[in-house]
Amino acid sequence: MVKRSAGGGEVQFLERLRSRIRLPKGGQTVAGIGDDCAIFRPRGSSEDLLFTTDLLLENVHFTRETHRPEELGWKALARGLSDIAAMGGEPRFCLLSLALASWNGAAWVDRFYEGVLALAARESTPLVGGDLAHAERFGCDIVVCGAVPWGKALRRDGARAGDLIYVSGVLGGSALGLAQGRRSGAWRRHACPEPRLELGRFLRTDLKATAAMDLSDGLSLDLHRLCLASGLRARIEMPPVFAGASGEQALHGGEDYELLFTARPSVRVPSTFGGLPLTRIGTMHRGRPGAVELDGRPLPALGYDHLRQS
Amino acid sequence: MVKRSAGGGEVQFLERLRSRIRLPKGGQTVAGIGDDCAIFRPRGSSEDLLFTTDLLLENVHFTRETHRPEELGWKALARGLSDIAAMGGEPRFCLLSLALASWNGAAWVDRFYEGVLALAARESTPLVGGDLAHAERFGCDIVVCGAVPWGKALRRDGARAGDLIYVSGVLGGSALGLAQGRRSGAWRRHACPEPRLELGRFLRTDLKATAAMDLSDGLSLDLHRLCLASGLRARIEMPPVFAGASGEQALHGGEDYELLFTARPSVRVPSTFGGLPLTRIGTMHRGRPGAVELDGRPLPALGYDHLRQS
Repeated sequence: MVKRSAGGGEVQFLERLRSRIRLPKGGQTVAGIGDDCAIFRPRGSSEDLLFTTDLLLENVHFTRETHRPEELGWKALARGLSDIAAMGGEPRFCLLSLALASWNGAAWVDRFYEGVLALAARESTPLVGGDLAHAERFGCDIVVCGAVPWGKALRRDGARAGDLIYVSGVLGGSALGLAQGRRSGAWRRHACPEPRLELGRFLRTDLKATAAMDLSDGLSLDLHRLCLASGLRARIEMPPVFAGASGEQALHGGEDYELLFTARPSVRVPSTFGGLPLTRIGTMHRGRPGAVELDGRPLPALGYDHLRQS
Repeated sequence: MVKRSAGGGEVQFLERLRSRIRLPKGGQTVAGIGDDCAIFRPRGSSEDLLFTTDLLLENVHFTRETHRPEELGWKALARGLSDIAAMGGEPRFCLLSLALASWNGAAWVDRFYEGVLALAARESTPLVGGDLAHAERFGCDIVVCGAVPWGKALRRDGARAGDLIYVSGVLGGSALGLAQGRRSGAWRRHACPEPRLELGRFLRTDLKATAAMDLSDGLSLDLHRLCLASGLRARIEMPPVFAGASGEQALHGGEDYELLFTARPSVRVPSTFGGLPLTRIGTMHRGRPGAVELDGRPLPALGYDHLRQS
């Protein structure tokens, strides 16, 4: 899951796609491709709706040998909820499209749904529909809808020069868990990530974060994307590292599902939120959009890029 | 795509799933699993939102040898729009999750998007987001959001005893096109189906249809589902058949994406709508829920069931 080659295949692809798509002016879709969620404004409603979709595919995102079905179900929904968290939203419902392979017996599918429904119940996110098919490989696509007060969604493009950069939690645990396997203490970080929904709402309501996103593909790549979206560059120092993980895993590992956010320097950001550390790691600057420096040296965007030619 | 074995794998699966899921009472999700779309009620809005997801998978729904990429893109979106049409909705936006295989070069992907975007532009359904991954096989999941006035969505479960049953268009063309291949006159019926959006709105606003759904899996199976949902049985005669198609293809073929609907007997249903025939094929009756009779004899539900053991 963790690749080690430079490049921006996905960024380029999305730019090309975006250039071909024009959102209707004055329409109900107020943000489209390129953020954690699309934003839709229902007629007459006091809320904006957030939409995110996430694929979870056999032999791409997991293998049948390594992952338990209830872990996969949990993780499928957790990834979508993490996108809602990143925009400061409250989840409303989810949809699940499922492609079942011949090796997915009824008991396996039941356990997969147990994982989905356990997290869905905890986060008040009812599963209200989806699609079903048989396929050669297992795959699923989860759609999560969330809501924020009108115009209040946290976005990637709102950071301003001088804003301070923060991350929640400690990074690299997911990559460590994947490398060490399911008997390791870090495995749960990889297999059962926690969407930071309460933190996301706190960023929106209390800290008035100027930008936010979730760390799904690795800090180096995700911060690069936030910088690109905001038209700025970033200077950071080393983020907090999960015990036992390497600096590489913390910087480029991906799938930690912590939140990366920026706030005005005048905002007092607490050192923890609900027991979760909030750590200042750097500052946003004017300069070449997308550039990231770690301890004064360029940090390549080595995180996971689904469309990079490897 | 057209299977010939009896059974109700998907119906049973959905029943089992539905029994495990309880929509919160008084919540914003007013219909869930089992209809063409899920229905969501945004706070303060005068509209209900409709959501549908549809998988389109290599070697399941198509093969790379037989289908052009722009046809696949069109069809992916058309299938979702057809679900919106079936509930009388207006499309609002769509999301597309794409799993790209190694054989999907940049030109192929561009042509696929051309198909999606051509129909999206025609039906004012902007593509606002999605997900991207590489995979062993091409697959996509399209999510379409539509809207209807509050409480006005056409559903499968609203038919009443005595209601008359209608279909739009002529049936079996898609199955014929698939059987004859892309040089045949029927191929376009298979590869580029037309979502009946205007008809769906007309059913809602003018005919006050009591129930409606789209014919995606074959009349025999889809009418069985409508009957099950409404707790009734149906007696029909032969529907209109696409020129050259067999009666089997018209009854069980699937993927015609015409609309099946019921209306009170007092409603005057015109014989055509925008040039499309509307044909009365039968009547809803009290009796064993789900049972369908054709010309007085039981009609087995032989349409395409994604979860049937074949």
